[in-house]
Amino acid sequence: MRRALELASRGLGHTSPNPVVGCVVLAPDGRTVGEGWHRRAGGPHAEVEALSLAGDRARGGTAVVTLEPCDHTGRTGPCSGALLAAGVARVVYAVPDPTARAAGGAATLRRAGIDVTGGLLGPEAENVNHAWLTAARRGRPAVTWKYGATLDGRVAAADGSSRWITSAESRAEVHRLRHEADAVLVGSGTLRADDPHLAVRGVADAVQPLRVAVDTEAAAVRPGARVLDDAARTLVAVAADLPAGRTAAIEGSADVVRLPRAADGRGLDPGAILAELHRRGVRSVLLEGGPTLAGALLAAGLVDRVVGYLAPALLGAGAPLLNDAGVATVSAAVRLEITDVARVGPDLRVTAVPRPAGTPTTEGP
Amino acid sequence: MRRALELASRGLGHTSPNPVVGCVVLAPDGRTVGEGWHRRAGGPHAEVEALSLAGDRARGGTAVVTLEPCDHTGRTGPCSGALLAAGVARVVYAVPDPTARAAGGAATLRRAGIDVTGGLLGPEAENVNHAWLTAARRGRPAVTWKYGATLDGRVAAADGSSRWITSAESRAEVHRLRHEADAVLVGSGTLRADDPHLAVRGVADAVQPLRVAVDTEAAAVRPGARVLDDAARTLVAVAADLPAGRTAAIEGSADVVRLPRAADGRGLDPGAILAELHRRGVRSVLLEGGPTLAGALLAAGLVDRVVGYLAPALLGAGAPLLNDAGVATVSAAVRLEITDVARVGPDLRVTAVPRPAGTPTTEGP
Repeated sequence: MRRALELASRGLGHTSPNPVVGCVVLAPDGRTVGEGWHRRAGGPHAEVEALSLAGDRARGGTAVVTLEPCDHTGRTGPCSGALLAAGVARVVYAVPDPTARAAGGAATLRRAGIDVTGGLLGPEAENVNHAWLTAARRGRPAVTWKYGATLDGRVAAADGSSRWITSAESRAEVHRLRHEADAVLVGSGTLRADDPHLAVRGVADAVQPLRVAVDTEAAAVRPGARVLDDAARTLVAVAADLPAGRTAAIEGSADVVRLPRAADGRGLDPGAILAELHRRGVRSVLLEGGPTLAGALLAAGLVDRVVGYLAPALLGAGAPLLNDAGVATVSAAVRLEITDVARVGPDLRVTAVPRPAGTPTTEGP
Repeated sequence: MRRALELASRGLGHTSPNPVVGCVVLAPDGRTVGEGWHRRAGGPHAEVEALSLAGDRARGGTAVVTLEPCDHTGRTGPCSGALLAAGVARVVYAVPDPTARAAGGAATLRRAGIDVTGGLLGPEAENVNHAWLTAARRGRPAVTWKYGATLDGRVAAADGSSRWITSAESRAEVHRLRHEADAVLVGSGTLRADDPHLAVRGVADAVQPLRVAVDTEAAAVRPGARVLDDAARTLVAVAADLPAGRTAAIEGSADVVRLPRAADGRGLDPGAILAELHRRGVRSVLLEGGPTLAGALLAAGLVDRVVGYLAPALLGAGAPLLNDAGVATVSAAVRLEITDVARVGPDLRVTAVPRPAGTPTTEGP
């Protein structure tokens, strides 16, 4: 299964709106006779690829798959059928398929007399398909909020300068995160302050994510903005109630979508932004700032993962990394659970996920 | 040497103003025949303790010591003499003694024909004596700044609440840090907001540190403040130019010292605070807040180590962990180097030290 997960992860950034899947086929004597992974949406599924390599040697053997084999016919046939046709005796998978359309593969195989086991290395397999599984379960894109800040939580100094707080190594990693996301999202403050480009650089065979600029008043993205170049597609989201023609100057270089404002009047409705992206096939969003947009998504419970790059530096003044997440007192803090900590060059990368509401946090004094 | 360092660390919190020292004596055949550590100021040195356990078996053997053996007679005789008298053939030590008074032990031993080697496990030995070595080299107490904050760098929520941001595990560790320090230092903002107690709880055989309250205007520490109880000694530092009698109400429960104001008029001169503490025998200071006092010490280059407890929580508003460290732009940030990262319960503990000025940090873009 570890090998299958390794194969699956090769597809990251290429398979959306499909999951990444890896498969290893073992002959009855335990030798590996076929390997495969889902390389891109529309291409063969991992099981089919592995089985075709294995050929007759799969008969009576075992298929190890990172996700429950699908049971439906889409652009390719059902994998449950392919496994039956190949004559495998046993199927081991990691995570059940949560989608109504594709689920049922395990049941179909069991009914055909095959020995089926689920749950092997489940947490690791959840992790490799984090975005796709979240999108499937919640019916909206999975959101990862990435920030780079000093140890004292600043994303810019008192004079507004922010280049560079984090290291070259951390910034290179961010291109990898962008590559793995279907869309990169920023708010108007960041658009104004940084004129960001948001495309992937330095990753071989990169699939460029959709660049999404939340520009409620259609005032931050001006013609000539870097986000409007042709390195990747761009979507500019503005308020539905703006006068017609306000976005005319940029409509040649970007898609423009009109969305409802947030109930509290500050910016666009975060749920509406994600619904629109989901409708466009986006299953994973990398939120890259700024502090206000991140606060709005956190307050709405729409952030599934936080990846913070902490530079070992102190500023003591300047913009904080997060503004107004709807928290007034310590007991109402957004509580997370740290799932990973790593050194990236001189910096620290901290990955965390929201803790289910009601989880006990600390006891005092 | 690892064993000697382990022995040395048992003295932490008990030996000030002396260093911690551990010693292992090996017989000529390599067997351990004596161990010792410096248990408290005025007590026998590690070498003397280990040699007295070894007795005649030390003759022709090796003494492994974490610090260069002293060469002066204080409350106890010189260790160089004790080693000669015991007839050891070889001395291995980790770190040279930087003090003018005690240095020279290695040279004395060499002149007497003993084989002397320095530098073994030097970095580890530096670490166990971090505070004492820093104080000896700089002529002022070593300063560790400890803070507990959210991932977004807040030490309190919008309503001022701060209990509890960090976990019970982290708060227990802070008592260990206090125990290892000679003094605990806080500013007037923290005194007002938290009425902190600052004594050590939950550590067996704890030596209580001196509690130091920087209360420039003599307005934050009122009679009945928790810091004035009899759990530990307390020093209140106020401005030298205050009218006489301003501190009369607390002089029964604390020492009061009058110190010059800072050149910029904000608070007391940080160098004068540390000089006064050094004069009183303090070799290590744990700075526990608040954001303004930490900013003043950082700006003056008087912080030697930073220990941050990061709670996996987000507030998006409230007091930042650091105010005004004299930094206006990113290129002038206080740059640190992370020396250790550890999980403490649900929290993250990040230890860092200032990077020497002029060290290259990041290259862009």
